[in-house]
Amino acid sequence: MIHRLGVVGVGLLGGSFALATRARHPVNAIIGFDPDAEALARAAELGLIDRPAASLAELAQACDLILVAAPVGAVPAIFATLATHVNRSTWIMDVGSTKQSVLAAARAHLGTVAARFVPAHPIAGGERSGPDAASRDLFQNRHVILSRSETEDAGLYALAWQLWEQLGARPLDMTSVEHDRVFAAVSHLPHFASFAMVGDYAQRADGPLLFAHAGGGFRDFARIAGSSPSMWRDIALHNREALLAEMDRYLAALTVMRQQIANADSAALTSTLHSARDMRARWLAGEFAPRDTLPAQPD
Amino acid sequence: MIHRLGVVGVGLLGGSFALATRARHPVNAIIGFDPDAEALARAAELGLIDRPAASLAELAQACDLILVAAPVGAVPAIFATLATHVNRSTWIMDVGSTKQSVLAAARAHLGTVAARFVPAHPIAGGERSGPDAASRDLFQNRHVILSRSETEDAGLYALAWQLWEQLGARPLDMTSVEHDRVFAAVSHLPHFASFAMVGDYAQRADGPLLFAHAGGGFRDFARIAGSSPSMWRDIALHNREALLAEMDRYLAALTVMRQQIANADSAALTSTLHSARDMRARWLAGEFAPRDTLPAQPD
Repeated sequence: MIHRLGVVGVGLLGGSFALATRARHPVNAIIGFDPDAEALARAAELGLIDRPAASLAELAQACDLILVAAPVGAVPAIFATLATHVNRSTWIMDVGSTKQSVLAAARAHLGTVAARFVPAHPIAGGERSGPDAASRDLFQNRHVILSRSETEDAGLYALAWQLWEQLGARPLDMTSVEHDRVFAAVSHLPHFASFAMVGDYAQRADGPLLFAHAGGGFRDFARIAGSSPSMWRDIALHNREALLAEMDRYLAALTVMRQQIANADSAALTSTLHSARDMRARWLAGEFAPRDTLPAQPD
Repeated sequence: MIHRLGVVGVGLLGGSFALATRARHPVNAIIGFDPDAEALARAAELGLIDRPAASLAELAQACDLILVAAPVGAVPAIFATLATHVNRSTWIMDVGSTKQSVLAAARAHLGTVAARFVPAHPIAGGERSGPDAASRDLFQNRHVILSRSETEDAGLYALAWQLWEQLGARPLDMTSVEHDRVFAAVSHLPHFASFAMVGDYAQRADGPLLFAHAGGGFRDFARIAGSSPSMWRDIALHNREALLAEMDRYLAALTVMRQQIANADSAALTSTLHSARDMRARWLAGEFAPRDTLPAQPD
């Protein structure tokens, strides 16, 4: 059981974790910290947290679980502070979108506390950010990726698994390498593909004309270009290798399609379009539910 | 007033036009034709049309307005048949997503009937297709692009404008060249960007693993990859020049972003992401409403 939960970063994910924990777990107090004083005050005002901490050190000393919900680029410095201030029984979990970089930061900066670190990535979010976007149902039926082989303390791994289940999420086990490769493709690349197009249109002279005529297809395509720039800059720079590999594949796929169009190669183009449409339909029909063979609980 | 409406292609757009016209215009009869006999029977069963025509020629002879709602690649052959069978007072309108190619087909195949052709493009649709996707509200508050300078008969242009307004749409005047350039950017490119990514994932060995972990961001990005392959193949091949120009710009923008990430150029990357996010926010706030200076009615 968690007595005092500390949430570092009171935005969408941290705020939602606080709300979900309060709703579904007998926590005594939730303490928040955020370098953005306005966001921290807003989180207290919205009741996401019971009280703000004056410093990260104060939060570290007061809590038995600390959730780090900051852009992944800020994680190393946060870990360094936590390492020198947490109690002996405190455990730490993150919610970062890149896992190899967070594990490297844990090894580099958490010192002996690294043994009590549980890497986690809930597959939930959206283009909205900040405390006002927080919702206690954000994790409902969403996957959360944990890494058994990279969590030193098996008891904490089991505890994290149970806690996420309590919050309504569906835990899955995956190594950080596999995680970073898979999410480079299905999450990071789509974001940068959307950012690149919307960013280009934003910067050209006829941008206002284009946006004036954009319809529903563009709206959905561009939704993720509304996501937090600092969060996504950090993701790009902290999952760089896997993302660049996916960007290169995407550039190659687009170049092939461009050539099919240039050559008026109707058969090849149609085949690509059918292949995309069919796979999407199978996906929406639930054919690719992940890892049905995984244990419902860790052993 | 339209007495007998003929709808060639009883899918999403043709079926919705039929439903909207019946709901909002005193039409006597709606006659449908579709080379897909199953779709045509379904359209009659759903009440989108009053009766199916046995042939395009039969439909042409029976109607005073013929709406051509077929993939743009099928339009030239349809025009050729219509040209030899329509009555002297019949007028013809299309709903195609490419306008220069449709106007070229009208010039090449409609003969003297080209004078009674009104090119139109309602900015409505979605990834669903076929008669079952039709809705009488599809055009509600949606723009529809007309081209005054490329419609020979000013009276028919005014009639089309009024009819679309009756159906709930918001007509806008635009030349075919401008139309094709603008929609290559805000509609056609996003579709092929989505098709290319989903098509690549569909074809790789780890595709099922990727789809098993795809979340909400991917879902929205990939929605338009569920669109009709034949319709979009035709759009690509019939707006090839403008689409290729946009694909080349997009490939260049993605390559710049790739390089920013490879170089860990945090400042440049952040600037692009902010520029995209800010423009999207201004767009959603309504800053780029098109052509507020246009007359509400054609003169």
